[in-house]
Amino acid sequence: MQNTETAIRKVVTIVCEGALEATLLREIESLGARGYTVTDARGKGSRGRRDATWGPHANIRVEIVCGAQIARAIIDLLRERYYDNFSMILFTVDAEVLRPEKFD
Amino acid sequence: MQNTETAIRKVVTIVCEGALEATLLREIESLGARGYTVTDARGKGSRGRRDATWGPHANIRVEIVCGAQIARAIIDLLRERYYDNFSMILFTVDAEVLRPEKFD
Amino acid sequence: MQNTETAIRKVVTIVCEGALEATLLREIESLGARGYTVTDARGKGSRGRRDATWGPHANIRVEIVCGAQIARAIIDLLRERYYDNFSMILFTVDAEVLRPEKFD
Repeated sequence: MQNTETAIRKVVTIVCEGALEATLLREIESLGARGYTVTDARGKGSRGRRDATWGPHANIRVEIVCGAQIARAIIDLLRERYYDNFSMILFTVDAEVLRPEKFD
Repeated sequence: MQNTETAIRKVVTIVCEGALEATLLREIESLGARGYTVTDARGKGSRGRRDATWGPHANIRVEIVCGAQIARAIIDLLRERYYDNFSMILFTVDAEVLRPEKFD
Repeated sequence: MQNTETAIRKVVTIVCEGALEATLLREIESLGARGYTVTDARGKGSRGRRDATWGPHANIRVEIVCGAQIARAIIDLLRERYYDNFSMILFTVDAEVLRPEKFD
């Protein structure tokens, strides 16, 4: 029975400069996230309203599937510790996951 | 008229070890999926509750846009044939797609 | 107060051949998008109903977080200028974003 189960969890996606990878992932794990997926990316974005300092090189895209409480903790972490100092974006979607217990 | 059409389809995302790529994609195609997108990824995750065997190397992230029936068939395939034996995650979201007939 | 704010925005994902990158991103920026994320990808898909010309090499996956109006403009751009001539897919999801003003 358990095998047939799906449930809704959060998928949190962060795009930031690659230099943050080790630090950021360690902090996200410490919040209770059970795993993450990282892909190399490039992009462009604005840091605040005026300057475009998010360069074309060496960004990463990090994806974390987790419960709502951990997603909230990740959002708070980024808002309080990273968002003012680094070029990054964060967005969250609800997804149907297979074996939800893997993510709790 | 047809050109202006968008509709809701499923986006199924699978993250697994890269060694599964050829086999998994062949099976997904045989279920009727019209296409897929693969990106190289790295990550960390747990295999079951205790061991963390999902290494930091050579994962892939596979994305399939398809109708609800094929999405369900992919979920069943992974649950029955892969999920107990390999480190992988699967999640599904609803998305508005352009030219939905491309995915049916 | 502003710092605690999240809001719903659109995440537009485009998968297309890599040769389109510079042109497509320039046009998307001209529509008002504030940034984008690009990852290299490979994949398979159909171009129209019969032929499968979306090769296994040199695709890109482009992700744009933006408001609903810009998302609509991007969808219209692709439908009118690209979709008949190139192998590509587009899908859009609603996401909760941190600092929504970054994307407006």
